[in-house]
Amino acid sequence: MNSLIESRFIRALYRQPVDKTPIWLMRQAGRYLPEYRMLRQKEPNFLKFCQTPSLACEATLQPLERFPLDAAIIFSDILTIPHAYGMALDFIEGEGPCFQTALRTEHAIHQLPAIDPEQELRYVMDAIRMVKKTLDKRVPLIGFSGSPWTIATYMVEGKSSKSFSQIKKMLYQEPQLLAHLLSHLSASIADYLIAQIEAGADAVMIFDTWGGVLSPSDYLNYSLKYMEEIVKKIQFAMHQKNKKIPIILFTKSVGGLVTEMAKTGCDALGIDWTLSLKDALQLTGQKVALQGNIDPAVLYAEPDIIRQQVALALASYGQLPGHIFNLGHGMNPDMDPEKVAVLVECVHRLSMPYHQPQVVTCP
Amino acid sequence: MNSLIESRFIRALYRQPVDKTPIWLMRQAGRYLPEYRMLRQKEPNFLKFCQTPSLACEATLQPLERFPLDAAIIFSDILTIPHAYGMALDFIEGEGPCFQTALRTEHAIHQLPAIDPEQELRYVMDAIRMVKKTLDKRVPLIGFSGSPWTIATYMVEGKSSKSFSQIKKMLYQEPQLLAHLLSHLSASIADYLIAQIEAGADAVMIFDTWGGVLSPSDYLNYSLKYMEEIVKKIQFAMHQKNKKIPIILFTKSVGGLVTEMAKTGCDALGIDWTLSLKDALQLTGQKVALQGNIDPAVLYAEPDIIRQQVALALASYGQLPGHIFNLGHGMNPDMDPEKVAVLVECVHRLSMPYHQPQVVTCP
Repeated sequence: MNSLIESRFIRALYRQPVDKTPIWLMRQAGRYLPEYRMLRQKEPNFLKFCQTPSLACEATLQPLERFPLDAAIIFSDILTIPHAYGMALDFIEGEGPCFQTALRTEHAIHQLPAIDPEQELRYVMDAIRMVKKTLDKRVPLIGFSGSPWTIATYMVEGKSSKSFSQIKKMLYQEPQLLAHLLSHLSASIADYLIAQIEAGADAVMIFDTWGGVLSPSDYLNYSLKYMEEIVKKIQFAMHQKNKKIPIILFTKSVGGLVTEMAKTGCDALGIDWTLSLKDALQLTGQKVALQGNIDPAVLYAEPDIIRQQVALALASYGQLPGHIFNLGHGMNPDMDPEKVAVLVECVHRLSMPYHQPQVVTCP
Repeated sequence: MNSLIESRFIRALYRQPVDKTPIWLMRQAGRYLPEYRMLRQKEPNFLKFCQTPSLACEATLQPLERFPLDAAIIFSDILTIPHAYGMALDFIEGEGPCFQTALRTEHAIHQLPAIDPEQELRYVMDAIRMVKKTLDKRVPLIGFSGSPWTIATYMVEGKSSKSFSQIKKMLYQEPQLLAHLLSHLSASIADYLIAQIEAGADAVMIFDTWGGVLSPSDYLNYSLKYMEEIVKKIQFAMHQKNKKIPIILFTKSVGGLVTEMAKTGCDALGIDWTLSLKDALQLTGQKVALQGNIDPAVLYAEPDIIRQQVALALASYGQLPGHIFNLGHGMNPDMDPEKVAVLVECVHRLSMPYHQPQVVTCP
């Protein structure tokens, strides 16, 4: 145990009182920061950049140097796991990730290897260890992974998709094969997140970017079920070590299914901007903390509008403990860092009246 | 008044008893049909194809020749209106629509002309008149338009977008300018749909493909508000003529906001597969008919699975009147027409137990 469990971010994840609403931003490290674009010049290949712990560490810390954010998140990508399976991967500017060969056959799926995160994904653990050393308990560090369903969409489609035809063909034509793939991914992801915790991550988050493209019953059977398995495995591993680590689940565009997500035993849910925090609170029955949720596009607006939108989101959540401020999705490359400064300042200042003034938290 | 008001489709839209659940499919005419791909060879330019009434008419009728569908929908595109404003437009294979110049400035927006649908969009009305003549009251014909918000996204972004950064910048930085654009579009769309009704459309539908990318309050203020204006204008125009035409609204990925959509005075809502029909019924309080909602990807499955999914959707809606079967989104080009035959047959056959056998409807 360390003093970070008294940090705003970790306390809020456990729905404990804090002095101000903590804030961090999805994709807070990245191309919108000139210093990140500069750093990338040292290694223009995105995958190699992620695989170089010193660079990943520096990218992780850059936004913390600029803004009083309440958490860091390790700089990495959700496709590290298929890459560790041996699937060759390119990142094409403007098109996103692209596998050299999409995963479509029963043979290929049954051939997927088991991975040891401290071997094939050691670069992530090394980056986490470097960040933790440099951060020196200033703020907590979030480890993360893609969800089984979301990682599987990229593996089966071979690249970003709008229609998800290939993986849905598999879902409806060979549901057992897809279940095998998702189980395999779940095992790898659980090991990967446990290794990240061992390396120093203070909380972990599972990003299910594409769960929202499924029907409610398919979502439960092909996405949430496997996220729940991962939650249970991590909790079991932590229990063995007499440790507790908050787990955050995020499914984009999941709507009213947050009710089901809250039953998985996770500690917090990421909420995108298509659901109000007030509705999300009601749907989740205060079982979990909520992280979110203004539209990232609000950062295109003038400071007055940002302030107004922050005030609305804070009011929507209200006086209960357990709110972590965030955007409903990641930062865009064309956003202005100055607007992030405005956002962070507004969240800290405007949230104070929602919290008990007598509660002292550190830092 | 004509006998089509006794058709399954129109009766279901008014939540009147029918013998079988009517079915039609979004994008039922299109590239998945070999006869459509053949027809396109006569005019490979998509926009010119839409502008040639004889070709649009033939494309509209093709799926009716193959399948016992309960409605036709006029073959056209949602970007006919900006094109009628004089915005030059290309359709690039695999990339979708692309305007030569995106609409971004106050000057350009204030310069947008008013349009007379019987002039600039006469080709659509001519196609409707041709279809009506050929259909000879066999099934009703649906006229349609994009929603103001959805059409505006293409005009302002200039092309398909994932982040909608440009129009959201406008929304947060120049909300009054965006409101002006949406009002202008609303007026054009109302006139356009009224003209389609005059030309012979038996029902009209407004496609709001991108309303779901907005926060709940932005959706109400920038999308639904304008669709409601259009509904009222059409209803006022029909009232003047002592006529009644059912109006269907469809916003993709709108989730629980169907409750608000049902209050607009429209007759039916399109429901995508991310909301169960049971939940949609509860959220809309039987104020409107519901059209939907299996995942189009179900058509990639074997006939057994299609049957099973149809049965689940029918059971989810239950015994109440007012269900029109449809996919939750359009057909994909790589789908097999044979599967559509299976789907239509299943819907008609499996839905019979949900309806009173003594009710006689025509055709």
